[in-house]
Amino acid sequence: MKPNFSLRLRVFNLNCWGIPYVSKNRADRMKRLGDFLNTEGFDLALLEEVWSEQDFQYLRQKLSPTYPAAHYFRSGIIGSGLCVFSKHPIQELTQHVYTLNGYPYMVHHGDWFCGKAVGLLVLHLSGLVLNAYVTHLHAEYNRRKDIYLAHRVAQAWELAQFIHHTSKKADVVLLCGDLNMHPEDLGSCLLKEMTGLHDAYLETRDFKGSEDGNTMVSKNCYVSQRELEPFLSGIRIDYVLYKAVSGFYISCKTLETTSGHAPHSGSPLSDHEALMATLCVRHSPLLQSSSFAQGPAEKSLLLSVLTEARMELGQGLAHARWWATFAGSVVGLGLLLLAVLCILVAGGGAREASALLWLPVGLVLGAGAAYIFHTQEANGLSRAQAELQHVLGRAKEYQDLGAEPQPALLRGQQAWDRAEEQ
Amino acid sequence: MKPNFSLRLRVFNLNCWGIPYVSKNRADRMKRLGDFLNTEGFDLALLEEVWSEQDFQYLRQKLSPTYPAAHYFRSGIIGSGLCVFSKHPIQELTQHVYTLNGYPYMVHHGDWFCGKAVGLLVLHLSGLVLNAYVTHLHAEYNRRKDIYLAHRVAQAWELAQFIHHTSKKADVVLLCGDLNMHPEDLGSCLLKEMTGLHDAYLETRDFKGSEDGNTMVSKNCYVSQRELEPFLSGIRIDYVLYKAVSGFYISCKTLETTSGHAPHSGSPLSDHEALMATLCVRHSPLLQSSSFAQGPAEKSLLLSVLTEARMELGQGLAHARWWATFAGSVVGLGLLLLAVLCILVAGGGAREASALLWLPVGLVLGAGAAYIFHTQEANGLSRAQAELQHVLGRAKEYQDLGAEPQPALLRGQQAWDRAEEQ
Repeated sequence: MKPNFSLRLRVFNLNCWGIPYVSKNRADRMKRLGDFLNTEGFDLALLEEVWSEQDFQYLRQKLSPTYPAAHYFRSGIIGSGLCVFSKHPIQELTQHVYTLNGYPYMVHHGDWFCGKAVGLLVLHLSGLVLNAYVTHLHAEYNRRKDIYLAHRVAQAWELAQFIHHTSKKADVVLLCGDLNMHPEDLGSCLLKEMTGLHDAYLETRDFKGSEDGNTMVSKNCYVSQRELEPFLSGIRIDYVLYKAVSGFYISCKTLETTSGHAPHSGSPLSDHEALMATLCVRHSPLLQSSSFAQGPAEKSLLLSVLTEARMELGQGLAHARWWATFAGSVVGLGLLLLAVLCILVAGGGAREASALLWLPVGLVLGAGAAYIFHTQEANGLSRAQAELQHVLGRAKEYQDLGAEPQPALLRGQQAWDRAEEQ
Repeated sequence: MKPNFSLRLRVFNLNCWGIPYVSKNRADRMKRLGDFLNTEGFDLALLEEVWSEQDFQYLRQKLSPTYPAAHYFRSGIIGSGLCVFSKHPIQELTQHVYTLNGYPYMVHHGDWFCGKAVGLLVLHLSGLVLNAYVTHLHAEYNRRKDIYLAHRVAQAWELAQFIHHTSKKADVVLLCGDLNMHPEDLGSCLLKEMTGLHDAYLETRDFKGSEDGNTMVSKNCYVSQRELEPFLSGIRIDYVLYKAVSGFYISCKTLETTSGHAPHSGSPLSDHEALMATLCVRHSPLLQSSSFAQGPAEKSLLLSVLTEARMELGQGLAHARWWATFAGSVVGLGLLLLAVLCILVAGGGAREASALLWLPVGLVLGAGAAYIFHTQEANGLSRAQAELQHVLGRAKEYQDLGAEPQPALLRGQQAWDRAEEQ
């Protein structure tokens, strides 16, 4: 690769709010989105909440001259809602479905039925290997009493793990999507600390768009004003994150968001704002500082984020185990009741009892399903906690040894590997 | 790394048959397994079917002086049953739970409740990066009419994808486990063709153990003779597979299996036979031939395996869609019946009808659950089929271009990347 190598990458991200029968003006918005993407000719367009495969097929057909490569990530019952359109051939693709994603009985929230996931595309651009990830995490319905916090932290952990383990050979890593987390939230910090990804909004010197880079703003006519009440200027939950891994330097030249209406004017494309970033990748004989040595403040931040995440998962785990035990007890009670009723019916003592049989049967089946679900939830949280504990243990070992770079397990791991090679 | 670098790796694998209350002499077998592992001091012991976490904790305590590092892979409801014990520190670990794993209503087969998975450990041995994978795929209950074939092929595909995407920086890849597939089965071929892994039994020149390397033999007193009826000498479904990825050469010096009894004598450790391999890794300036150019026969084998797997997934998909449609129709019927009964009860026309209300309610709930499950199954199969189709499409593109190395997408991909680096 030439030393003066330079690559410009234009990326588009949007949570499309494409819920059939629910989202307003869906067909019109999809049409206008297609027109806009065709006009702009981004290198990559990464979309979330394209829940209907028909919408994807419509966009695929419409965009095929400009974006010959496309993929729809199928998962769960409804689907992940994730899809991508690329100007460049997709060399490889795969996906990871998050272990935990809400509760099946919270039907009105619907996340459990979606199979939320992270999709991965590997592209080769002028000899550079780009790993592009697109994701959508569990929604936050009540910030004050967020019953999904442990699930979202576990998702952020799995996302960080997936990126780490699948991007070891990548030159550039790009993550776009709706994280449903504010920049300072635990999951956001965990993700950024573990992967070393940079936030385009914080890094760019040329930003145009909504106040504070927010991606849900009250000016948007599709946004419920009540939901945004505590946040006057809106919230920032959609991101373009990136890093260069080896021998490359990446920077965000420009970042633009829509501001409650379509890119140029007119009614908005979605209830979220679109993100449009121009990234520049250059060959760099010096590795990016962020991938290497960390100061004491960063080391301590990593350890404190890991500790806090472990605590949060621990609370979720205790909660899941309590529900599993409770559901197990109800199953036992139901079986007891069933036996008593059967004895009554068989003895002829109370013929009316037969009409009541549905009660213990329903109790056993319902509580049985809840038991199965919450045991699975406990196992999922326990898994994330054990993996996190392992990383924390190794980080502390390195700290005790006074080794440098200290949290070598994730970021530094790659530095270690590279040093071995040289 | 020195040019005369050489590393000897002793590996143990066993499906432990550790089902609480079901597996015979479990406690005694676990004790003897622990004693044996302590005596032998392998580098790595990879175990499957350790369903009880208490058994893992017992082994962990017993083995801690010889194997200071250990991990239990939690997943699903019962767990994945997978665990590892390592003489060397585990640098990193993660896991992937298979999307498809049987049917919840096949309670007597139980696989669905396990959350079958693949676990990954990253070890650093004398500066060499070893990715060790342990897995257990869905059991085969009826070889003539195998209703789980599509699920097992999808699992083999996900396993190959997981290994491919997570091992790009590894020097040596090791996969041990109970694949529940014979060596010539579609899933085995798919896995080996896609990852380039070699079968220790076929590669070693020094094999000791059961006839044909079988890992379930009729001599084993815990094996049901009826199950093995069509296979007089037994079946080979447990494997040690390996490859060296870059600049290293790996070979299997010796492979040993137990033969229906404990390693030295006495009653067997499990209903499966244990595998014990001694692998030798050497520095090699020449890359292993298998990672590079393939002859026309190998190319055509890859394409035919991919095509066959796509067909098998397609059949499974049609089956899943049929069941989803059927269950959906039953839900509709149940709702209709419910409405009719409600009208009858409300009109006072038939008071007895109220006692029958449980029928449509049960129908709607049961068929609703089946609809959800089979829709999820269809999405899972569809996902694997789309990923496979993508690989097949790219393999054909390379073939049409007459490019060399041709199936560059998986094996050659790494060759491509390496060539870029040099």
